[in-house]
Amino acid sequence: MKLYDYRLPAPNPRRVRIFLAEKGLSLPLEEVQMHKRSHKAPEFLEKNSLGQLPVLELDDGTTLCESISICRYLEELNPEPALFGGTALERARIDMWNRRIEFSVMNPVAAVWIHTHPLTAAITRQFKDYGEASKDRVAGALQWLDGELAAREFIAGDDYSIADIVALTTIDFAKFIGLEVPAQCTNVQAWHQRVSARPSAAA
Amino acid sequence: MKLYDYRLPAPNPRRVRIFLAEKGLSLPLEEVQMHKRSHKAPEFLEKNSLGQLPVLELDDGTTLCESISICRYLEELNPEPALFGGTALERARIDMWNRRIEFSVMNPVAAVWIHTHPLTAAITRQFKDYGEASKDRVAGALQWLDGELAAREFIAGDDYSIADIVALTTIDFAKFIGLEVPAQCTNVQAWHQRVSARPSAAA
Repeated sequence: MKLYDYRLPAPNPRRVRIFLAEKGLSLPLEEVQMHKRSHKAPEFLEKNSLGQLPVLELDDGTTLCESISICRYLEELNPEPALFGGTALERARIDMWNRRIEFSVMNPVAAVWIHTHPLTAAITRQFKDYGEASKDRVAGALQWLDGELAAREFIAGDDYSIADIVALTTIDFAKFIGLEVPAQCTNVQAWHQRVSARPSAAA
Repeated sequence: MKLYDYRLPAPNPRRVRIFLAEKGLSLPLEEVQMHKRSHKAPEFLEKNSLGQLPVLELDDGTTLCESISICRYLEELNPEPALFGGTALERARIDMWNRRIEFSVMNPVAAVWIHTHPLTAAITRQFKDYGEASKDRVAGALQWLDGELAAREFIAGDDYSIADIVALTTIDFAKFIGLEVPAQCTNVQAWHQRVSARPSAAA
């Protein structure tokens, strides 16, 4: 098994690296030079027709794409510690929180990245007013998340889960593009310190 | 157990209804009047702080949001027929395809809906040029999907799965807002006929 990877700032490959660290697993990593557009080269498109990272390649050559789907697969092979939940209801709630973070927080962060950042200007058509307005959507989503975190320690409940990994990589990527967590979001700030203090956050 | 629902055109509640039909299950449905903004009323926000549908309410009052997470939970309670896959690798592949359809097809469809449609103009700030450009992204995504469907009958492999439900509701919603499957996408057209012919598609 081998993982096609890319270091910072890409948030999706980092999800898998943090997941591996939390599980105490390691995999051979092969860096794909995203800054040289190697993820859009024909030989890589054979592994992932969407030209995205990360990709897990199994020993028989089968490839599996999408950060969360790769983690899901690794969780089934290595059930402990359970990062996708231990009961049917926990698994559903953690899945719900993954989706909420991805759709309500990561989507507007990605819109800011794609439509306002100098690094993406060369490779995509930017709609700057849409990108600028998405900054308010990010702030609104973090305000909503702050209310949700008032009563619990981690994103999906009392235990650390894959949803914390999704939220951490999202918020750290937001910081990378200049979107700080608003000062009044003290619950998000405290949660961010908590999860960033785990050794896995260095991945 | 009770499902908070809304009929056409909303694609997300329909996912759960099709899933229930494929499973041969039925649940009490309570219609939430989205056109009257009842999903944003304080009493509904207590069930889902994001004010979105569908929501599954358990007998103890616990609520579960997000269409796919609800289906995941129902799959664990009612494993057959397996719509999320029967092995670790199948489950990961089906999850990957759910994500690909949601991020690569549904996201641009939603951008067209939010930023160009007359029905959303009254409730959101529209960026029309971004919305118009998203029509090309939808066409490009369907072209990509067409290539993927050349070699197999269903979205994630040889068997019908939740990924077909996600794709069907996405493409039917796209049609509702005026985005037809391009004529040259003959594999997508044939797949659409195949899944639309199943009794569950009437849900």
